[in-house]
Amino acid sequence: MTAVHFAERLADACRSRGNSLCVGLDPRWDLLPAALRRKHGGGGLPGMAAAFEEFGLRVLEVVAPLVAVVKPQSAFFEACGPEGLAALQRVLRAARQKGLLTILDGKRNDIASTAAAYADAAFAGTPLEGRPQPVWDADALTVNPYLGRDAVEPFLASARRAGRGVFVLVRTSNPGAGQFQDLVCDGRPLYLHVADAVGAWAREGLGRCGLGDVGAVVGATHPAELAAVRRLLPEVVFLIPGYGAQGGTAADTAAGFRADGLGAVVSSSRGLTACFDPEDAVWEARVEAATRAAVDELRRLTPMGRLGNGPA
Amino acid sequence: MTAVHFAERLADACRSRGNSLCVGLDPRWDLLPAALRRKHGGGGLPGMAAAFEEFGLRVLEVVAPLVAVVKPQSAFFEACGPEGLAALQRVLRAARQKGLLTILDGKRNDIASTAAAYADAAFAGTPLEGRPQPVWDADALTVNPYLGRDAVEPFLASARRAGRGVFVLVRTSNPGAGQFQDLVCDGRPLYLHVADAVGAWAREGLGRCGLGDVGAVVGATHPAELAAVRRLLPEVVFLIPGYGAQGGTAADTAAGFRADGLGAVVSSSRGLTACFDPEDAVWEARVEAATRAAVDELRRLTPMGRLGNGPA
Repeated sequence: MTAVHFAERLADACRSRGNSLCVGLDPRWDLLPAALRRKHGGGGLPGMAAAFEEFGLRVLEVVAPLVAVVKPQSAFFEACGPEGLAALQRVLRAARQKGLLTILDGKRNDIASTAAAYADAAFAGTPLEGRPQPVWDADALTVNPYLGRDAVEPFLASARRAGRGVFVLVRTSNPGAGQFQDLVCDGRPLYLHVADAVGAWAREGLGRCGLGDVGAVVGATHPAELAAVRRLLPEVVFLIPGYGAQGGTAADTAAGFRADGLGAVVSSSRGLTACFDPEDAVWEARVEAATRAAVDELRRLTPMGRLGNGPA
Repeated sequence: MTAVHFAERLADACRSRGNSLCVGLDPRWDLLPAALRRKHGGGGLPGMAAAFEEFGLRVLEVVAPLVAVVKPQSAFFEACGPEGLAALQRVLRAARQKGLLTILDGKRNDIASTAAAYADAAFAGTPLEGRPQPVWDADALTVNPYLGRDAVEPFLASARRAGRGVFVLVRTSNPGAGQFQDLVCDGRPLYLHVADAVGAWAREGLGRCGLGDVGAVVGATHPAELAAVRRLLPEVVFLIPGYGAQGGTAADTAAGFRADGLGAVVSSSRGLTACFDPEDAVWEARVEAATRAAVDELRRLTPMGRLGNGPA
């Protein structure tokens, strides 16, 4: 089997939906619909995991017809212990079965065979006596670059064998991101040095759309930096968090796109999946309305509108 | 309950054993004793998890009388899926019950409430309706600093509430570590800027031994950098990986210690727990001999020898 290039799969999915909005699945107990908390409360961490799973599956039902990409946050599932990770597996599987691309937001990093262990688990599966055993089976994984090439290349090698992708943290969306990322080295901030490396990795193998399978995480909350990285990296797909609850606007993300509307995935979590009053019985309608509104706004204010019309 | 400061707990444990060698638990299927592979093979990932658990528990039996600290590598347990994380929980619990301090090597990083979710799971437990539910219950966690203060402070706040510690990656042991960590910013390499931040966090709260609860990961494979960071950070505990299989020698780690023998934890994984022929039926005796030899060597060639005599 020859795996289809990650950037091609992503581009096809975004064109088919007419957008590249990514729904972040960051389940937090205190922000869940109250009915779900009542149903699963008192069950300790396994109950919390069951609530996160039910919430995730119901969000997928709502958003799968509307968007191409979902991004579960590993931390919240891990916080429930082993049962949470079983829930994460089932949420990821359900997303795939609905034709969604999945970005596992784990920000993993380590070296050599340890990085390969994370990567194989994320992508084609953990090798056991020569046969890969699927674990998370995600389409992409977020990766932290601080350890250097040894911490990225094993992820990349594993991703490429399976037509998957890696998103490397470049300039993140948090208020303290600049503490190290903006330090000036040889006349340029650190994050541009990381961007250089990401560009070199991406150019090792481009899809037909001209984009690579190594992406960059660049926050919506820093539009000037976003524009700078886009100029430097025409071949790189950006994962842009920080749209919505973190304060980045749709217009702030515009500089992250390629002119044809490809090249950027804009992610929102709380703004889509915690947009309702917990006591609101029709919370799924609120999630649907918020997702449709975000798509409309991004299509109007960014090149995303050039992706085609998507579903009616 | 007032939690005892992490650095005090670590110092007491190291003094009681007469050393600060840390046994890394990095189980890899291909390096396990063949008898364990035969026993659990054919069981897919749950079998792999069971083999990792049995291996970890048997290593703990051997090393608990000899050392103060063990460091399970999260990646290899995660690679088995949810059953692997249940195995990790049981290995961590067994280590605690044997009086060992545990460093969970997860290199986690994220921002705000996401970082707090990782941290609470690592330390006192995930809060659920106001009550913490234990998940990993480790004594310390490795953390990646690239995201800046937002990615470290939630870990630190959670650790401090429970008398736990955080080890921040500063200068890692891998060949490509320098790609970003050695970039010169304002006349000094990036890793010294990270070290500055670690020092400031550590000085927020020192134990009676004069050491903080925020440590630094500095590889044994870079002795000059290790000495530079030690001069800069007299109050910081170092976690020094890379001793043994990665090529760092005992003498290379000497510069990481405080003169009284505190302040450094030296970690070895494959050199201790994959030191045998897989077909060797008495592999535990090999692990014991390798651990004793490492302790002897470190006590002879570094200030670790000043910690007292430990057990006979």
